[in-house]
Amino acid sequence: MRKIAESTVRRLSLYLRFLEEFEEQGIETVSSEALAARGGTTSAQVRKDLSFFGSFGKRGLGYSVQELVQKLRGILGLGRTYRVAMIGAGKIGSALVQYRGFKQRGFEIVAIFDTDAAKVGRGWNGLTVQDARELESALRDQRVDIAVIVTPADSAQNVADRCVALGIKAVLNFAPVQLTVPDDVVVKTVNLALELETLSYALTNR
Amino acid sequence: MRKIAESTVRRLSLYLRFLEEFEEQGIETVSSEALAARGGTTSAQVRKDLSFFGSFGKRGLGYSVQELVQKLRGILGLGRTYRVAMIGAGKIGSALVQYRGFKQRGFEIVAIFDTDAAKVGRGWNGLTVQDARELESALRDQRVDIAVIVTPADSAQNVADRCVALGIKAVLNFAPVQLTVPDDVVVKTVNLALELETLSYALTNR
Repeated sequence: MRKIAESTVRRLSLYLRFLEEFEEQGIETVSSEALAARGGTTSAQVRKDLSFFGSFGKRGLGYSVQELVQKLRGILGLGRTYRVAMIGAGKIGSALVQYRGFKQRGFEIVAIFDTDAAKVGRGWNGLTVQDARELESALRDQRVDIAVIVTPADSAQNVADRCVALGIKAVLNFAPVQLTVPDDVVVKTVNLALELETLSYALTNR
Repeated sequence: MRKIAESTVRRLSLYLRFLEEFEEQGIETVSSEALAARGGTTSAQVRKDLSFFGSFGKRGLGYSVQELVQKLRGILGLGRTYRVAMIGAGKIGSALVQYRGFKQRGFEIVAIFDTDAAKVGRGWNGLTVQDARELESALRDQRVDIAVIVTPADSAQNVADRCVALGIKAVLNFAPVQLTVPDDVVVKTVNLALELETLSYALTNR
């Protein structure tokens, strides 16, 4: 498949969300206009995005919701299970694991780590918190697809390096730091401080 | 002040994070190279970003950490307190309020709302959860700068509309939906499903 821009992937992801809602409501077809209205974009953009993947609506009928859900799930790689290791056993991790869309989309946490002696050995959402210093021995013999890093800023790069050395190719980073990884590893950073500061900047410089 | 690009604001926010760490460690000056290394950018970019605000390092000495922290905090609007109302009393909200950077940066949650009868009236991080249907009467007489929306997708736009009607000019949205707001309102969306799907897409289409 051709490489598509991240902005397109993000729109496809949004379309999928709406289509799943429509599906739950028993709606069978949807127009590009309805998808555009929910996605904050134009119907021309929707048609362009979807024709790119060979999905064509029928004039006057629109797209089949069920067909489009299947197609988008396939494109976004949601037809399989992703094994996730979480490094940092805090509230963000708990929020993530209990987030409805997480398991539903095939993301399964298979290991949880922390350096805090008060947390190591304790139960955490059905798993036992393991010592983060033993990341290598704990993960050496099992497949992990995604590392979720929820550590303080000053240890995040070290943790990322060790995950990369273990062969993990995708990282979701909640530490407030820009991680450096090899080209074949993908990192997404969710930086709450940064989001808050773009808001405070906007409120201050109106 | 001239309007600066959001990408610049995001870099300034990252520089500030590193500078605050340096300050905690008692480091007095920093080079553009050191800032660039931590920010995943180039020293030329750092110098350009900072010269834009009239901060010039001294050749061979670098930038004064303390001076730059003050300046960046001012630019990012962090010299004041922001009153935050949270709509949705779940785990993401709990993670956010207990996040060290939140209160530290002057963000203060002054009200919390939910529609769940089991949550309304209960304590939540020192506040009492209020009925989201009474948002207007609860917020009419107090200043709220930022609304944090942590509701299901299908009620987020309605909540956003009501916040806008109350005069709130900034929204941090965790609902998996694109919100539509007037031009004078700023919205930042943190969409975990979307971040996960850009990872699954990347892992599947390698």
